[in-house]
Amino acid sequence: MTGKVFLIGAGPGDPELMTLRALRMLKEADVVVYDRLVSDEIMELCPEGAELIAVGKCPKNHLVPQDRINEILWEQAAMGRKVARLKGGDPMIFGRGSEEAAYLMDRNIEIEYAPGITAAQGASCSTGVPLTHRGLATGVQYVTGHRQADKVLDLDWKRLADPDTTLVVYMGVANIGQIAVGLMTEGLKPSTPVMAISRATAANEERMVSTLGTIAQDCRDAGLKPPTLFIIGKVVSLYASKPQDLPVEAVSANG
Amino acid sequence: MTGKVFLIGAGPGDPELMTLRALRMLKEADVVVYDRLVSDEIMELCPEGAELIAVGKCPKNHLVPQDRINEILWEQAAMGRKVARLKGGDPMIFGRGSEEAAYLMDRNIEIEYAPGITAAQGASCSTGVPLTHRGLATGVQYVTGHRQADKVLDLDWKRLADPDTTLVVYMGVANIGQIAVGLMTEGLKPSTPVMAISRATAANEERMVSTLGTIAQDCRDAGLKPPTLFIIGKVVSLYASKPQDLPVEAVSANG
Repeated sequence: MTGKVFLIGAGPGDPELMTLRALRMLKEADVVVYDRLVSDEIMELCPEGAELIAVGKCPKNHLVPQDRINEILWEQAAMGRKVARLKGGDPMIFGRGSEEAAYLMDRNIEIEYAPGITAAQGASCSTGVPLTHRGLATGVQYVTGHRQADKVLDLDWKRLADPDTTLVVYMGVANIGQIAVGLMTEGLKPSTPVMAISRATAANEERMVSTLGTIAQDCRDAGLKPPTLFIIGKVVSLYASKPQDLPVEAVSANG
Repeated sequence: MTGKVFLIGAGPGDPELMTLRALRMLKEADVVVYDRLVSDEIMELCPEGAELIAVGKCPKNHLVPQDRINEILWEQAAMGRKVARLKGGDPMIFGRGSEEAAYLMDRNIEIEYAPGITAAQGASCSTGVPLTHRGLATGVQYVTGHRQADKVLDLDWKRLADPDTTLVVYMGVANIGQIAVGLMTEGLKPSTPVMAISRATAANEERMVSTLGTIAQDCRDAGLKPPTLFIIGKVVSLYASKPQDLPVEAVSANG
């Protein structure tokens, strides 16, 4: 008898932002295969007695290659266990969840999904900065600001430099200088507001408001480290205009 | 003593895709101000005795203007009640949640947010089609395909016609012909796969797989009605390649 794999989005960090389905699937698991982006508070919700397997990529820690993660999921499910594959955010957005799903489907392993609140949505929720807003942003896009070590950051700056949409950059802290220059070269003003957020909604959230012209320097000064998300666009001005209505204890700096 | 407003994302339709926070806030409410995009299954979770106020825009039904919705929220909170403002999807993405929040903050009404799984994420979860996938889509963007009656659909086709990202079009069923032509004029191939989904994750979900070249005709033939979401891009090919692994009972047609 084979088991199954629950492909679970744990959301941005706060356990209360998990979906009911995500929590139900996690509670049913015999084994939890988890990434480093899953918060400690959520890991505490793993069922007692469940085996915990860390596979998260962490610069200074052991890294489990994607091929090996796939094998672990397969091996565990083939043993008849219910496997919770727990990822930060949503497994279908930058989560490589669909790669794991394709591998497992090829081996006839049953999969069930639980989507998760993205880090961008979590940041929006905790800061009050919307991702779209009439008159400020007609849409929103998510891109990654990170490439593998041997690849160049080949983002299409002309396409991304749209003053009328919100741009959310994941995993961009190492390349934020290049990203800001690329966007300004294609027409975004240096005064375009930017918010940087680390670990949105988690207990140790940090945030910083800056502009495209100064974000790279401000990031260096503040020592912001990955995982950091950038929200770029006019919607961020809604944060600055109402600071008195928003929680300030987590603000680590401001531009 | 003034009350407060919970700005709640109800998610795409399936009650199990609500966050724990959304459910907790809904259960605390004295009054629920809700949109038509909130599913019946979720409305059944409203607390017994809570007053229910429908404000959703529905073509053939009464429409409550946004100004009046704002006033209702204010009036109810000013009476000292806990007001659940329940919206489909996420209130910070095409939900006008931030407009309501700005109005209420100006009147010193306390607000708490609960983000929601978007319809795009719900569609991804129920179909297995990811929103990003290595080699197929490096990012994802959400736009609306609808404008008010007196406005033209002023989308920037050149910027949107990117074969390497996933484009999600909300509220686009009336304009899908114009959208498809705009994207093809700027270089997307007519063979680009498209998935149309109505009421993703709800009990009465309908979906259709087509291509950019044929989606407008297929929509007319299938009689797809709003609210319908379009996922446009190479990621949709992951659906067609594995139909046997996906639920088929909800498939209303295929291109």
